[in-house]
Amino acid sequence: MAATTLSSISTSSDAVRAALHDAVDRLDDILRPMVAYHFGWCDEHGRAVETNGGKSVRSRLVLLAAQAVGGDARCAVPGAVAVELVHNFSLVHDDLIDRDSTRRHRPTVWAVWGDAAAVLAGDAMLSLAHEVLLDSGTPQAIPAAKLVETATRELIRGQAADIDFEHRDDVTLAECFRMVTGKTAALLAASAAVGAVLAGAPATTVDAMRRYGHQVGMAFQLVDDLLGIWGEPAVTGKPVFSDLRSRKKSLPVVWTLESRGSAGHALAHWLSRPDTPGESELRAAAELIDRGGGRRWTRTEARRRIALAEQALATVPMDPDRHRELTDLAKFIVERSA
Amino acid sequence: MAATTLSSISTSSDAVRAALHDAVDRLDDILRPMVAYHFGWCDEHGRAVETNGGKSVRSRLVLLAAQAVGGDARCAVPGAVAVELVHNFSLVHDDLIDRDSTRRHRPTVWAVWGDAAAVLAGDAMLSLAHEVLLDSGTPQAIPAAKLVETATRELIRGQAADIDFEHRDDVTLAECFRMVTGKTAALLAASAAVGAVLAGAPATTVDAMRRYGHQVGMAFQLVDDLLGIWGEPAVTGKPVFSDLRSRKKSLPVVWTLESRGSAGHALAHWLSRPDTPGESELRAAAELIDRGGGRRWTRTEARRRIALAEQALATVPMDPDRHRELTDLAKFIVERSA
Repeated sequence: MAATTLSSISTSSDAVRAALHDAVDRLDDILRPMVAYHFGWCDEHGRAVETNGGKSVRSRLVLLAAQAVGGDARCAVPGAVAVELVHNFSLVHDDLIDRDSTRRHRPTVWAVWGDAAAVLAGDAMLSLAHEVLLDSGTPQAIPAAKLVETATRELIRGQAADIDFEHRDDVTLAECFRMVTGKTAALLAASAAVGAVLAGAPATTVDAMRRYGHQVGMAFQLVDDLLGIWGEPAVTGKPVFSDLRSRKKSLPVVWTLESRGSAGHALAHWLSRPDTPGESELRAAAELIDRGGGRRWTRTEARRRIALAEQALATVPMDPDRHRELTDLAKFIVERSA
Repeated sequence: MAATTLSSISTSSDAVRAALHDAVDRLDDILRPMVAYHFGWCDEHGRAVETNGGKSVRSRLVLLAAQAVGGDARCAVPGAVAVELVHNFSLVHDDLIDRDSTRRHRPTVWAVWGDAAAVLAGDAMLSLAHEVLLDSGTPQAIPAAKLVETATRELIRGQAADIDFEHRDDVTLAECFRMVTGKTAALLAASAAVGAVLAGAPATTVDAMRRYGHQVGMAFQLVDDLLGIWGEPAVTGKPVFSDLRSRKKSLPVVWTLESRGSAGHALAHWLSRPDTPGESELRAAAELIDRGGGRRWTRTEARRRIALAEQALATVPMDPDRHRELTDLAKFIVERSA
């Protein structure tokens, strides 16, 4: 259902894809193939391939937000390209930092070309993101660029906090939420706000769209954390129990630890063990989180966030079709967990 | 002499330092101490220290360029902060990529906090650079931001080429110059151009300043390459024969290889050996470059570039004192090799 509705912006999505290709074409012969590979446009030898190229949730959100506030989705294309570049810059750097060797069922950039290449390919994408917005030359590009920049800083802060959590055993749920606000919600919030800004919406509308994007982002991470433990490798493209292998302080884990029940205590003990866990131990840890209520809480909290997103949306007068597209996008995100 | 002349812009330099501190203060509690440490403002425990904090050549160039074209150096402060942040973003990432463990006689960011921290601290600095310029709110901030962004992409391209050269034994001098144009000259060219743009100079003046900065940048790298082989560790803060240890395809090396004399052939043979070279072998390689004429050529080429920088400068009508400051800055760069 969501897919059908989202296709109403397919022309602008094509424009985003074309503009993204144009931006990547500005890169040099060394980095361009790596970035094109990361986007799923070619294989590691530079041969063109057909892939779905990821979900593009952020660029869709920019376009939908512009239409929702009464603008033309085309005016939002540079913003959509910019957030997509920022998002993918962070993926390339995060894969390196987290030593994730596969993404979308393919080896990651660092796994193919090494650490230096991944650092530089990410840097180039971040740099391009800023160029694209300013080159659009509209007066709204400036506030839009500021939104993207603040969100980028938040994104980096969130990733730094996430790394910091790895070395700590006293991470609180509040800290975890703050980390997720940066790491995931900031760019989705900015995406919705950027679409509204580029369409010339007033400040209160921009802020409502920002709040919608923030809550959608929080729900997105909650679902991502469920998938990080219980996701099917065939769907997620990551190994089973991926987040448990790296002992990540994800939301279901930290909630279970804070609940202080017997499952929480057992989970804390499990996390403190220095040895590398085997399959059966990973399964047991996942079972502890499930038994302790962490899985159920995460699912409920994701739904609560979607409801909050819809509340924010309700304050903006908009065409019912546009409204449904945005609520469908939000639902699509939580339903990934099904 | 240069130092005395440069002190005429000390008030604006203070303003740059203050604005740079303000920008870094926007960072979160995890990344801020790392960035402050990198700038030499504090030690690795966050305790304030007194250091010279590096040469700040780029931010000085922005201010000098603004004054040279008849503007007030203060209008150029956001540009100076932005180029300083971009430069230092690249240093933090380059140190990680090159595995350089010391800079300015102190352990580098990755050496103190690890790889992930260095990736993120660099990312944060690049992101801040863009914020600072746009936040200044002047109409000239947009073209200035575009100059900085294009230079940043060039800088990343140059670093990617530099890394690529490590795996190749057929690097030409032309390729090497193109790499240096990106890696070093682009940001110095942008610095001079940004100063002129922020001071409201016409396009021809901006372009002359850009060419001046480009040639100064080329000279800078030529001298840096000399220091990378023959520099005193006490001055450079790097181990002796640093660039030879990593078999870097620096300009004196590539020139010597291309000269095809006996020293060039012996150097090519030396570079192709797979073993880690000892002190005496490093000394022998440096001697080959010296004997083959690579050291003399590099010195001469640096002086030629400074002369070209002065030619570009001569096309811009300016106060003799301002003119002298810019030629002094150029001379200061080549005289580092003495």
